[in-house]
Amino acid sequence: MINQRPKTRATQKQHSHVKTLTLASKMVRKSIIKPTLVIVFLLLAFYAFFNTKLNSADTLLYVSRENAVVFHGNSSPVKVYMYDLPRKFTYGVIESFAMARGGLKGPVDDVSLLKYPGHQHRAEWYLFADLNRPDRSGSPVTRVLDPAEADLFYVPFFSSLSLTVKPIRAANVAGDGLGYVDEEMQEGLIEWLEEQGYWKRNNGWDHVIICQDPNALYKVVDRVKNGVLLVSDFGRLGRDQGSLVKDVILPYSHLIKTFDGDVGVESRKSLLFFMGNRYRKEGGKIRDMLFQLLEKEEDVIIKHSAPSRESRRAASQGMHTSKFCLHPAGDTPSACRLFDAIVSLCVPVIVSDYIELPFEDVIDYRKIAVFVDTNSAVKPGYLVKLLRTVSTERILEFQQELKKVKQYFEYEDVNGTVNEIWRQVSLKVPLIKLMINRDRRLVKRDLPEPDCSCLCSNQSGIHTTL
Amino acid sequence: MINQRPKTRATQKQHSHVKTLTLASKMVRKSIIKPTLVIVFLLLAFYAFFNTKLNSADTLLYVSRENAVVFHGNSSPVKVYMYDLPRKFTYGVIESFAMARGGLKGPVDDVSLLKYPGHQHRAEWYLFADLNRPDRSGSPVTRVLDPAEADLFYVPFFSSLSLTVKPIRAANVAGDGLGYVDEEMQEGLIEWLEEQGYWKRNNGWDHVIICQDPNALYKVVDRVKNGVLLVSDFGRLGRDQGSLVKDVILPYSHLIKTFDGDVGVESRKSLLFFMGNRYRKEGGKIRDMLFQLLEKEEDVIIKHSAPSRESRRAASQGMHTSKFCLHPAGDTPSACRLFDAIVSLCVPVIVSDYIELPFEDVIDYRKIAVFVDTNSAVKPGYLVKLLRTVSTERILEFQQELKKVKQYFEYEDVNGTVNEIWRQVSLKVPLIKLMINRDRRLVKRDLPEPDCSCLCSNQSGIHTTL
Repeated sequence: MINQRPKTRATQKQHSHVKTLTLASKMVRKSIIKPTLVIVFLLLAFYAFFNTKLNSADTLLYVSRENAVVFHGNSSPVKVYMYDLPRKFTYGVIESFAMARGGLKGPVDDVSLLKYPGHQHRAEWYLFADLNRPDRSGSPVTRVLDPAEADLFYVPFFSSLSLTVKPIRAANVAGDGLGYVDEEMQEGLIEWLEEQGYWKRNNGWDHVIICQDPNALYKVVDRVKNGVLLVSDFGRLGRDQGSLVKDVILPYSHLIKTFDGDVGVESRKSLLFFMGNRYRKEGGKIRDMLFQLLEKEEDVIIKHSAPSRESRRAASQGMHTSKFCLHPAGDTPSACRLFDAIVSLCVPVIVSDYIELPFEDVIDYRKIAVFVDTNSAVKPGYLVKLLRTVSTERILEFQQELKKVKQYFEYEDVNGTVNEIWRQVSLKVPLIKLMINRDRRLVKRDLPEPDCSCLCSNQSGIHTTL
Repeated sequence: MINQRPKTRATQKQHSHVKTLTLASKMVRKSIIKPTLVIVFLLLAFYAFFNTKLNSADTLLYVSRENAVVFHGNSSPVKVYMYDLPRKFTYGVIESFAMARGGLKGPVDDVSLLKYPGHQHRAEWYLFADLNRPDRSGSPVTRVLDPAEADLFYVPFFSSLSLTVKPIRAANVAGDGLGYVDEEMQEGLIEWLEEQGYWKRNNGWDHVIICQDPNALYKVVDRVKNGVLLVSDFGRLGRDQGSLVKDVILPYSHLIKTFDGDVGVESRKSLLFFMGNRYRKEGGKIRDMLFQLLEKEEDVIIKHSAPSRESRRAASQGMHTSKFCLHPAGDTPSACRLFDAIVSLCVPVIVSDYIELPFEDVIDYRKIAVFVDTNSAVKPGYLVKLLRTVSTERILEFQQELKKVKQYFEYEDVNGTVNEIWRQVSLKVPLIKLMINRDRRLVKRDLPEPDCSCLCSNQSGIHTTL
């Protein structure tokens, strides 16, 4: 689909030369005989001169690019090898999911009949489908079919979908996944992986493993922690399992409709909107407190709801007609709601102190969202008072910025989330290669503490970015 | 000395156009009057055509780069702003150094009269000179003159040379630097830096600071630790000051002559060579032990020596005629000797358990060096026995690999160390931008421990890579 590339420069050049020379010869044919030689000579000289210029420029470019590859190591696109996992880890998961819900009677031969279901942790599907695209031009990574050529190894287990085939907290739902047990799948993946020579070669450092749902791979994550983990946040990961240096934060796949209208506040009558589960574990306790504080406010819509098609429709409507959209922490610091708000051009108000955000090297979230620390947010009157001080002009600025970055959160966009995820993954390669090379030559030594390279953040923090 | 770059392409093009047009006008002047118009028309058409071609190619390149900038953030070359530091921090240091040694009577107006002296921590000079080159094509970074455009800020204080103007451990050498006090310079730099708006803006995260000598900036390093430090190793830095994630390891500037001959062992009669200080502090205690073990071995040359022109000549001779060159830890884990060995095609034998190595993402040092852990190396007979088992074929393989990577250690090479340092620095940008954006929006929170992102290494280690 990205096939409409211009012809190569060389072809274009050739065609045009032919045209120009034909025109030239027609024009000089008549009155002049001796001068013809002069003209031809001049034209040839001119042609030769420019041709040389062009060629030398090309060569220069070529040589310097070649040098870059040979000498600078990582300047060429990163090469990714996708494991051909046993079917049960990919299409098999979709199949079990569909069978458990009665959508499918039994296994199918033709995988194109299987439709990956819609949910918020769909990145695993998009990345898998992307690497399977025959034409991958425009992608920041190259897929290689020979593992010996690979910089990175992608493990395409549908770990998030696998979790939901037989939901953890609902063993008795209609259809029990026909004996499907996610934990067994996780163990099975590790068994399979640990038999691979490329996995053993570098202890998994150069492997990319997706576990977008904070619970995905929970049972075995400690055995894959050396790899680049593609996650939603570090809420369920230990300090030695996940880090901004090693891993990539993925956006959720937004569930509500993208707002296609322009910036503006006319049709956004309510100040603040939230719809979702009022009661959550751990970091999400704040939700109930916010409900108590906000449900009395006139221009605030805050509703408890469980996921359903109906509530999704209502949430779309609410987010498209509100100036601000609340994002409180859930069971873990991140949630789909943030990305729903972004594509709704509804300025996110983030009350989640430990949230990690996708693509933060290229997105300055202060420009598109308001951050408020939990302690301040639960002070009576604080939040609405703060938001009411924001001028229309400022809201429009936020919306303009939201429009600019929206593309990063559209998994379906050909130059959207998937490309950006691969770019983020690519950025890890130099450090991965360094660590691999270094690990191989490290000799035995007396270490007073673990040998870690760290980047530490400012400890102070602010109350709000407004 | 890195000035011999070709003229910029634009200039070349202009000059040649003028030449060609002059030649053309001379040739057509005489016999033809009417055809002159035709010729001129043709020439102009031809010129315009090619010019458009050239420009459209340029534009294409430009547009695609622009796209990259808008959406993919960091795909364009990293933009570096070099501070115009007060003269005393750059040329002033060279001046004081020369004056302290009697090579200069007093300050000079013309800085081109100042020659940066030869020593092993000369990267500060090469980077400064590189950024000052008018034509920087081929460099992985772009220099910008407007700090508002910069991704990174380079602080070109000659911190390593400054240390030696008045050597620390020799206050009474001839000439005392005429009142020059390095510590005051360090403090002065910080005072100056802390007045800069760009320094304050991101707490120094986006600043690149060179302190190649392990003692350089020792008094103030804690105040610049947020920046990308360009260092030889982390021997004198705390865990919170230096790390592989944030900083860049530089090679020393080799002091002995590059070996220009081919691979081979015929002229390399001795097995192992070392020349240098037998007695060192801290990590260097192993040296004396190695001397005791090795000085009786027949095919090993191990000599105590202090730095001098004579000893350097002898070391060149020794390294060019030995198969292996010993690199024991010195006061800190790194030393110039490793790089002398590399350019001598003398296979380094590294006995320095905590050494960090430059450019380890693109160089697999196991291919060019032998690593031996300290405990094994000091066992009687172990080291020579190990090295004697290495076949000629294997030594030739090491030498072949050494030849391939030599370029990385040649500061004078136009596509050598300096470009690679900038490439390494460029690689830090995405993480720096992420940390800057993140720091600005982090709200107050209760942290059980510092907020660090880490990458931890294998804890086991091996006895030797052979």
